[in-house]
Amino acid sequence: MSQLAVVALGGNAIQRGDQAGTIDEQEENTTRTLENLVFLIRQGYQLVITHGNGPQVGNILLRNDAGEALYNIPQMPVDICVADSQGGIGYMIERMLRNVLHKHNLHREIVTLVTLTLVDRNDPAFGNPTKRIGKICTREEAERLSKEKGWIFKEEKKAGNGFRRVVPSPEPLKIMNSGVVEYMARQGTIVIAAGGGGVPVYIDEKGDVRPAEVVIDKDLASSLLATSIRAGEFYILTDVPYVYINYQKPDEQPVEFLDLADTEKYLAKGMFGEGNMAPKIRACLNFIRQGGRKAVITEAFKLEDKRYGTKITMHYED
Amino acid sequence: MSQLAVVALGGNAIQRGDQAGTIDEQEENTTRTLENLVFLIRQGYQLVITHGNGPQVGNILLRNDAGEALYNIPQMPVDICVADSQGGIGYMIERMLRNVLHKHNLHREIVTLVTLTLVDRNDPAFGNPTKRIGKICTREEAERLSKEKGWIFKEEKKAGNGFRRVVPSPEPLKIMNSGVVEYMARQGTIVIAAGGGGVPVYIDEKGDVRPAEVVIDKDLASSLLATSIRAGEFYILTDVPYVYINYQKPDEQPVEFLDLADTEKYLAKGMFGEGNMAPKIRACLNFIRQGGRKAVITEAFKLEDKRYGTKITMHYED
Repeated sequence: MSQLAVVALGGNAIQRGDQAGTIDEQEENTTRTLENLVFLIRQGYQLVITHGNGPQVGNILLRNDAGEALYNIPQMPVDICVADSQGGIGYMIERMLRNVLHKHNLHREIVTLVTLTLVDRNDPAFGNPTKRIGKICTREEAERLSKEKGWIFKEEKKAGNGFRRVVPSPEPLKIMNSGVVEYMARQGTIVIAAGGGGVPVYIDEKGDVRPAEVVIDKDLASSLLATSIRAGEFYILTDVPYVYINYQKPDEQPVEFLDLADTEKYLAKGMFGEGNMAPKIRACLNFIRQGGRKAVITEAFKLEDKRYGTKITMHYED
Repeated sequence: MSQLAVVALGGNAIQRGDQAGTIDEQEENTTRTLENLVFLIRQGYQLVITHGNGPQVGNILLRNDAGEALYNIPQMPVDICVADSQGGIGYMIERMLRNVLHKHNLHREIVTLVTLTLVDRNDPAFGNPTKRIGKICTREEAERLSKEKGWIFKEEKKAGNGFRRVVPSPEPLKIMNSGVVEYMARQGTIVIAAGGGGVPVYIDEKGDVRPAEVVIDKDLASSLLATSIRAGEFYILTDVPYVYINYQKPDEQPVEFLDLADTEKYLAKGMFGEGNMAPKIRACLNFIRQGGRKAVITEAFKLEDKRYGTKITMHYED
């Protein structure tokens, strides 16, 4: 039976933290990750693939800074940098997936969409920018850029390590063109969309679509896309094979099954790593609350082995 | 009656040669250009929009160079830079078009696709790289980069002005996903695709899709897309209201109508500017030869006024 699933590629799926980020590294990681989707395709799943863009858009922002410094090329705002990263990463995933399917003698159309994600200009996140982007600056640089461009800076956590620009991270309200994504995916086309959480935009008082200088959490955006296209399953591929309760504490414990109530309880008690796993858990909870059947958090390489992965459902199955 | 048309935005449509290329300039130019498509939409045309990427991908290449020099960030190859530019420019066109349609109270779905364009690895163009890209280098830099990266350099036309990397510009063979573009456009969705001529790829002996370090002519790619989706009309929007015979010569003369035979004859005699108009003429000829009804070369701002524009058809109409 056909089953629509959204798979969010994150963590080490494309670029590992210990790598420089050459294109060869990115292509190799991506191919290894995508190999694990073959069994889902063989099982008849209709797939929508989303992805992060952290290291890539970080580099694009730094290149913008360097291009201005060395060649006086005007810098592009955050929305354009995110859109650039969607183009580059989306194309790379599409090309690698074409080759993986070719290798396995599978035939599917694969399409990559540039995706806009709507946020609310009145989201309280706009009053509290938290997401660090761009290069590390000295105090003097930070003060100058703050004056010139109106950017907001925060000192790095370890004092003396410099300052970084911070931007808000508002909730995604709506994934534009999700109807097109659903239609194509249900026809059997594999759709790559909502990269990096989507290009952030908002609607102003005149009804115009305006760019937002923010970063949208890619797991929340992927979850919203999964809900919007009425996907049955939502996979977040990350660096660990399970979600852990009391992660990195003496009583740390992997969990294979979670129902909505227990997940909410553990989350409220802070039993998932706040900077790390909690946002993914929230994305899964949104999906289940809105009618999604199953959310899975696991490592790409464990996807095929049913023993691995934390499965979150509305109720524990008997 | 519904009529499918491909409109290629070029020249000053997005970034003028005399501008620095700030995002404000690009957004304003793009909006002004897109305003001229409103009357086509009102007339019931189904639209596919393609676009150039010259200044933008030029800046992306320079930023890559600067990012490596200043921050030691690995440079991305040409295919990724083109894909980045498709993301950034495509998103910008989509957003501006959403606002233009909103202003005119028109409702259309607008979708931006990342597009791969296939070239033939045996295209003779690979033996004769001609397209200048990236920064101007000294002789020493050119020799070093040539050794390190295998790039090919040519001296700038005016000797003493330095060296630039040259890459091949092979013919586009196939626009990937043109079936999806056609399907969506015929449903009434405005599709933005094949930006910058498409991300250049080829199929290797194993059947894998591999990146090509080349630049594809955007007008030829747009024409191929128009043919592939069986569009009736193909518009190239450029910087002049007409094609001129004997351009910039004493007997220069604008032409309003051209049939296939005369166009081929004038082209063979070199009566169109070779570096400038001839590639656009070839793109139009390809379209007409393959069954396209009408190709138009004109300025965006003259699109609505039927007196302007050079119309190329198979035969002169009575």
